[in-house]
Order: sequence, then C-alpha cells, then structure tokens
Amino acid sequence: MAKNALGREIPDFIEGYGKTKLFQGAFALKPEEGYRAGGKIRCVDSTCTDKRVRDIKAAITASGLKSGMTVSFHHHLRNGDFVVNMVIDACAEMGIKNLTLFPTALFGVHKKLIEHIKSGVISRIMGSVNGPIGQLVSEGGMDVPVVLRSHGGRPRAVVSGDVHIDVAFIAAPTADQYGNICGTQGKSACGSLGYAFTDAQYADCVVAVTDNIQPYPAAPVSISQLSVDIVVEVPSIGDPAGIVSGTTQVTRDPLRLLIAKYASELIEASPYFKEGISFQTGAGGIPLAVTAFMREAMIKKGIKGSFGLGGITGYFVELLKEGLVERLMDVQSFDLEAVRSIGENPRHIEISADWYANPWNSGAAVNMLDVVILGATEVDTNFNANVNTEADGALLHGIGGHQDTAAGAKLTIIAQPLLRGRIPCVTDSVYSVTTPGEVIDAIVTEYGITINPRRKDLLDACSAVKGFPLVPMEELVSRAHKMSGPTDPVETEDRIIGVVEWRDGTVIDVVHKLKK
Amino acid sequence: MAKNALGREIPDFIEGYGKTKLFQGAFALKPEEGYRAGGKIRCVDSTCTDKRVRDIKAAITASGLKSGMTVSFHHHLRNGDFVVNMVIDACAEMGIKNLTLFPTALFGVHKKLIEHIKSGVISRIMGSVNGPIGQLVSEGGMDVPVVLRSHGGRPRAVVSGDVHIDVAFIAAPTADQYGNICGTQGKSACGSLGYAFTDAQYADCVVAVTDNIQPYPAAPVSISQLSVDIVVEVPSIGDPAGIVSGTTQVTRDPLRLLIAKYASELIEASPYFKEGISFQTGAGGIPLAVTAFMREAMIKKGIKGSFGLGGITGYFVELLKEGLVERLMDVQSFDLEAVRSIGENPRHIEISADWYANPWNSGAAVNMLDVVILGATEVDTNFNANVNTEADGALLHGIGGHQDTAAGAKLTIIAQPLLRGRIPCVTDSVYSVTTPGEVIDAIVTEYGITINPRRKDLLDACSAVKGFPLVPMEELVSRAHKMSGPTDPVETEDRIIGVVEWRDGTVIDVVHKLKK
Repeated sequence: MAKNALGREIPDFIEGYGKTKLFQGAFALKPEEGYRAGGKIRCVDSTCTDKRVRDIKAAITASGLKSGMTVSFHHHLRNGDFVVNMVIDACAEMGIKNLTLFPTALFGVHKKLIEHIKSGVISRIMGSVNGPIGQLVSEGGMDVPVVLRSHGGRPRAVVSGDVHIDVAFIAAPTADQYGNICGTQGKSACGSLGYAFTDAQYADCVVAVTDNIQPYPAAPVSISQLSVDIVVEVPSIGDPAGIVSGTTQVTRDPLRLLIAKYASELIEASPYFKEGISFQTGAGGIPLAVTAFMREAMIKKGIKGSFGLGGITGYFVELLKEGLVERLMDVQSFDLEAVRSIGENPRHIEISADWYANPWNSGAAVNMLDVVILGATEVDTNFNANVNTEADGALLHGIGGHQDTAAGAKLTIIAQPLLRGRIPCVTDSVYSVTTPGEVIDAIVTEYGITINPRRKDLLDACSAVKGFPLVPMEELVSRAHKMSGPTDPVETEDRIIGVVEWRDGTVIDVVHKLKK
Repeated sequence: MAKNALGREIPDFIEGYGKTKLFQGAFALKPEEGYRAGGKIRCVDSTCTDKRVRDIKAAITASGLKSGMTVSFHHHLRNGDFVVNMVIDACAEMGIKNLTLFPTALFGVHKKLIEHIKSGVISRIMGSVNGPIGQLVSEGGMDVPVVLRSHGGRPRAVVSGDVHIDVAFIAAPTADQYGNICGTQGKSACGSLGYAFTDAQYADCVVAVTDNIQPYPAAPVSISQLSVDIVVEVPSIGDPAGIVSGTTQVTRDPLRLLIAKYASELIEASPYFKEGISFQTGAGGIPLAVTAFMREAMIKKGIKGSFGLGGITGYFVELLKEGLVERLMDVQSFDLEAVRSIGENPRHIEISADWYANPWNSGAAVNMLDVVILGATEVDTNFNANVNTEADGALLHGIGGHQDTAAGAKLTIIAQPLLRGRIPCVTDSVYSVTTPGEVIDAIVTEYGITINPRRKDLLDACSAVKGFPLVPMEELVSRAHKMSGPTDPVETEDRIIGVVEWRDGTVIDVVHKLKK
C-alpha cells in the first residue's frame, strides 16, 4: 500500500489487475523506450475474395476465440447496440468462459450481460460500465475489479502492449464482403467509428458484424480490409432509436442557462477567445448552451473558430455550416445531424481515439484544444474531479475524454450546478478522483466562477473585467455544505471493485465495494 | 549456393543482403507465427502545438538520424521530386555517412545521388532504381547489391520487421503545423500518397516535408498527426512538370493498337467479362488502349465494372464519371485528371501500398482483381517475366505492382510487341525473373494470343470463340528468334549487384555485375 501523488491509498498489487503504478502527476510519467505492439501477421488465401461466414457462431469459431481470451467492442451504437449481447450470448452457448471484456463502454442495453457475468462467461471487464453493470460491480458482483480508462488511455494501453486484444468485434453500419467498413451509411448508421480504429489495428483477429453489405469496394472506408479478417452479416446490429437521438437539446432550465452564461463569460475573458479558437463541449444541456452563447459572442466579435473536437452534435454542425468553425474532428457522432454531416462534408473529419486523445503518440488532437467544457459528479477544493462514482459511491460512469481534454486543453472548465438534488457537487475531498486538479482551471456554478489558483494568469485576466462573477473556493464549499446539510459518508468494504487509471496507465484511484 | 523453385542459382548468403530465403513458388511461403513490427512509442510535450522546425538540417537533427541508419522516401513526386536530393545533400553536409536508402523508387532526377554514393553518404539502396542509378549499380558502382521489392513486398518487409525504418521523410503537398498531411492539394499536389502510409506507421521518426502549410487541422487528411513527429517547410518539394504529366496517351501506333485489340478480345472471351468486372491497366500506351477498347465493349454489352485499381489515369477517371466503374482504388495518381478526381470524388479512394498489394495482411486489393494488363522487358517459354533488367543486362527498372497484381488477379495478361527494336521480347529463358510464369496467364503480341497451358479453362473458353487469334508459344519463340537473328549473350561477372525478392521476401533471382 502506498500513497499516490494525490494522497490516495493504492495497493502495490491488486488481484485481477496486477502490479500497480502510482499516479505521479498529470504529465510526470514518460513511457519507457520501446516499440508499439502489433497484431498478428496475417496471410490469407489470395483466391478467397469473400471473408463472410454464415453467422456469429461461425465467426467466433473462425476467429479462434477461446476461453480466457480478451474480446473488444466499440460503443458508437450506444444504448441501441445489439452486437455485444449477440456475441457474448453466442460465446455462452458455445461453452466459452472466462472472457475479458474490453469494450469502450457498456450501457443499459447490456444489462443482459449480468447473467453471463454470474455464469462465468465474462470474468473481467476493462471499460466503462454505465448503469446496471456498474451497479452490479459496485455491490461486489464481480470477482475482480473493473478497469476504467479514458478515451486516450485505452488506445495507449493497447499501443503500449498493456492490453492485448485477441478478437475485436466491430459493429459495422456498412461493410463489403472483404471487410471495408464505414459508419456513416446504412440503416444503423452511427457516424464516426473513432473508438474502433485502434482495435482494428492491434487485435489478433478482427470481425466486422454488419447489417448492410454493399458491393466491393464499399466507400467511403473508415476501417479497411487490410486489417479485417472476418465479415458476418446479421439481421440488425442495433436499434436506431438507441443509436442516435434526435438533436440533443440546449438546456431551458434558467439555473443551468445562468451557469452556461457564466462559462461563456469566462471563455470570452480568457486569452483564448480570438480568431482560430478551438473547443470541445460534448452533448450535455449546459455545454450545448455554452456553445450557443459562444456562437453569439463569436458573431458579435467577428471571430471564427478553427475546429470543434470530440463527440459532435448538430449544434457543432451548424457552426461548421455557418463558417464559425472551419473543421469538425469527430470521434463519436452524437445525433442524426452529426451522422449526416460526417457522411457528406469533407470538412467534418472522422478521427480515431488514438488521434483524439492518446498521450503516447506523436501528438493527439486534445493538445491542440483551446477550451473544453466538462461536467463532473463532484469536484473538491483541490479542483480534483470525480466523474466515475455517484454520491452513494456507486461506480456508474466512464471517464470518456474527461482526463484527456482536461490535460490537453488550455482552458478546462467544469460547469455544473452547485447541488444535484440535495447532494453537493463541490466538496472538501471527492470520493474518488478521475481527473487531478492540476489540469482543471475553473469551476463554474450558478454562484459564479471559481478559478484554480494555479492559473494566476487567468485570474488576472478575469479580474480585469468589470463585474466579473468570481467566487472564491471557500465560499463555494461553505455554501454547498450549508445548502445540503450534513451528508452521510459512503460506507465501503476493503475489497477493490474498480481501478481508475490516469491516461498514462498509472492508478489515480481505486473504488471500493459498497457495504450492503 | 542452391537453386530456387525456378532453377535460379541463389547463394545462401549475399554480402550486404544477408542470408537468403529461396523462392518456393508464388504462394508457397506462409509467414511464421509472429507479430507485426511497430515504430517507437512516442510521448510529446502536450503544450507543444507546433511540430515545425526551421529547415531540413534542423529536421534531421531533431529526428535523431545518424550514420548507419535507414531513411525512407515515397516516389509520388516521381521525376519532379526535390525531397530525396534535399535530404541527402543535407546529410552529406552534416557529415552523416553510411545510410541505407529505402525509397519506393528513384528516378532520373535523383542522378545527383551518385556523388553521395561515391562519397559513402549512401552505402545501400533498397528500392527501385530507375535510370541512371540503376546504370551505376549495374556497372558495379555500389559495394552491396540493391534490393528490389514489389509495391506489396515493400510493406510486407516493413510490417514483418525485415526492414526497420529509422526516419521516414514524407514529401507532403499539404500539411499543417501538427503533421496532418494530404496529397491532393497545394502547388505540388500529386494525388494519392499510397506508398507513404506504411512508412508513416512503422518508422521510428516521421518527418513531413512540405511547401504548403495550411491551418490546423488541414483536411482531408491522408496521413495524420498521430504518427508525424516533425514538420519542415521548404520553398518547393518538387517540379510540377515532373510530378504529374498531362493526360497519358493511348498509343496511336497501329501495331500496338492491334496488340491492345487482341488483349481486349481475350478479356471479352474470358469468364471475367461480366457485370462487376474489376481491372488494372496502368499508364502505358498499350494498356490505355486496352482500357479504351474495353470501354467500348462494356458499353456495347451493357455491363458495368466494380473498380479500377492501382496507378490511376484520366482514362479511369472518365470510366468513373461515366459510371462504367463504381470506384477507383488509387495508390498512385498518374496525371492531372487523376489528381483532381481523388481530391474531389469520394468514390475515388486513396489506398496504401499495404492495402493495395501486401501478401501478409488480412487480404489486399489485388486479391479482388479480375484482370490486369502488364508489360515486361521479356517473357520466356515458361511464362516467366522480367521487368527489371534490359536486354543488355542493366538493372534499370523497378518491380512496381507487377508481382502483386499477377499473383492476385484472376487473369494476368502481358501485352507487348514481339520485338523491341531488334531485341526479342519472347525468349527461351529470361535473363532475370521478376514474376514467375505460374501467375501469368497469357502473352499478347501483334501475332496473337498465347495462353499459359496451366490455364486450360481459359484456353477452352477462347478456343470456343470463332476465329480467336491463338498462337502457340513455340511459334512465337521461333518467330521472335527468326526476326531478331542471333543475339549476343550478356556477359557478367560473379558479383551480385541486385537481389530481386518475390513479394513474400524469398529471392526469386539475383542480377550480376556487367562485364565492362
């Protein structure tokens, strides 16, 4: 047991995870001299011009998937995904056990996996466990801890060889019989396939699961035949209603609009609000409102942005169409407008998670980012943020690009109400840390803007603006405490059920089993 | 010394090349179980948002390039390229010696390298040596043999770890300051950057050399920032007149038109002339004429093709526009029309050499190919083809995609006049073998069509066509001999100056030093 740079107690060794490396600071760890991992060298029969097999079971057999192996999935079909359940159901029927599941994220639709966890088909999960599986894990429903990695930390783990993928199953909205895949077309179109690229490149075997076979060569191509070994056609890879929502909506709640207004004022007061500004806002109600306010401010001041990054919504597509940003860099298309745009507009670029956020490549897109608006379930007086666990200690959310954008962006803003229900979102010490305070620059609540003292430059810039709504951290915390009243501490057992990696592979925190 | 499967004498060990593996047959060798190689793991300072350095020398210093290392280049700028000379001149001035040059191909414009070979800056070349450097090598001007690989064999060698690239220099018609590269825009636009992809992915350090910096993120992106370490801006990367020609021309020579007509008849008589046919014809006068004849035949018969592959010309662009092919898969854009089209038309796809032709991936595009029209300096009675050496034994030409398309296509046609000048192109035994007869299906000359007896199916199909111009191999050879008269044998010394690899890395032939 030792304390990491944030003072969190981390065991030297965690059963089912292995030896831990302690978090040393956001930019402290450099990789050892070494070479990127690689998938198996393949050699196919050159007379075979069709990689299709009969069904999922035939694909599993052909892939060589066996008990004890690691299987990966991407989550662009979100809560509409049929592919994870389909593959794991088939594995169960085929008697395959003890799998390590390496999805980018699981959702409510994957609740069905609980039976496969209980029966031993799945013995380990490395990936975000949103919702019911997170609840199961929190209550000790798995023997070994879930490992959480950010969108950049996951490809880092693969590229560096920390995680080796035996078989990658790629939900493919469009594919041809020789394995060229694209996400922008077909009845299950999801837009960008950003999270799947690394899996395709590094897995020993890659299976494309599609419900839309097109003549060879299908184009545009996101992931090419060059690394796809098996193609399998199924009636449907997902439910369109769960894959993409309609346009995500700007909040109408006056309190949330006020927070967004404040965040926008902070951006405008910062040195980054100028020609060529780049930003990421995601899909939440507040961040979307910030985008709307920024749009007005940009038009008013006559400035144009360079690019919007990350998960892309119709709001960003509008900015692109209006010329208020020059490019969109899309790792995940959140709504129908984004899916349509990435399929049509060459200035709307599909990027891989590696390109987006991996700290161990020649330079990820997050490094080029000026401003990011993020949320959190709680932040503390050291500006550390928690996005993984809820107030009751349950591990219900993934990291997403939180760590990566916070580390990369020049201005990282957490924008959220001071309380959610009666739970304070600003506290003395977060229950678990996802992102360290050293990379978070400001917290914006309905009571004003609190700036990290590390960013004296920003504080000075904001102080120079007449009437700028600054609020000191102490005031924020005491106000939150006063409003929430005393809160019950989370009661946990010793057993670790979750390991939260910082994007460089060190352990920033662990999450314990909840007491019943 | 041992004989390979074609009876060619190959030493067990060749100085400057190493231990040889004997060619065993076109599809005989499978890779050993193993993993793909990888470039170095990188980790950049996330606050650096500009990878540019001052000049080429600063780029060389920053790349860590040292004497004895391997540097790679791509040849899309063809005879207009300034980058190879620029980099090697700078290396020479910096005192760097003993480099292994790993270009995809060298041209006349690189004649200047001869001084660097003589002074020891360059000690080894692995790549096609078209023209003056080939002449130098043939006369014994280098201490170790040149290694020739096909467009698919080269990425195979990199991916399998046979060749490790220390620094890749990528001539980039467009780039941004963070290393996103594209070939379709800028004053030095060359279209596809197909040959550069593998280098970018596998080199320890990647330098983009550009004369057109665009704001971040430049889009479209061929090769992304994710693997580009250094960007350097220079006044010009090439001479547009040498980079792309105007439209390459169909032959007007009646004899060559007759050959093209015969080739077209062969294709029409084959089982592949049907809806969805795919083909590669390259840029020569005869193959272009075949394309023109096929176009007519397709219109007449009302069939449409699926894709055109390989080096793309304006003729193929016309077929795409007319809907006579659905897609173009472009590894090299041969003329201005092709460069324009790949920049505009999403159905004109940029493919890497790995995707195009590597025999050791999950399945290359050549495997999907129906028909390819190729040339050769000579073919023999076993249908073996030589494209590397001239009649005088000089090693003047690269392999290109010859081996790969011949191995992949269902119908491989060599179309050429029986004699070039007074030199017979059909002979008892080729001087050196590039592509084995087992993957060549027919030879078409002005005297008719000679079909490989291995392809009884094809012979039967053609014999069924009334008046089909079949001509037996024996007749072809005796006619060639009669017309050419006795030819002088090439006189060589023992020393090996060239090693010709089959696409799987085995040695299919060696080329000896010419006697003075």
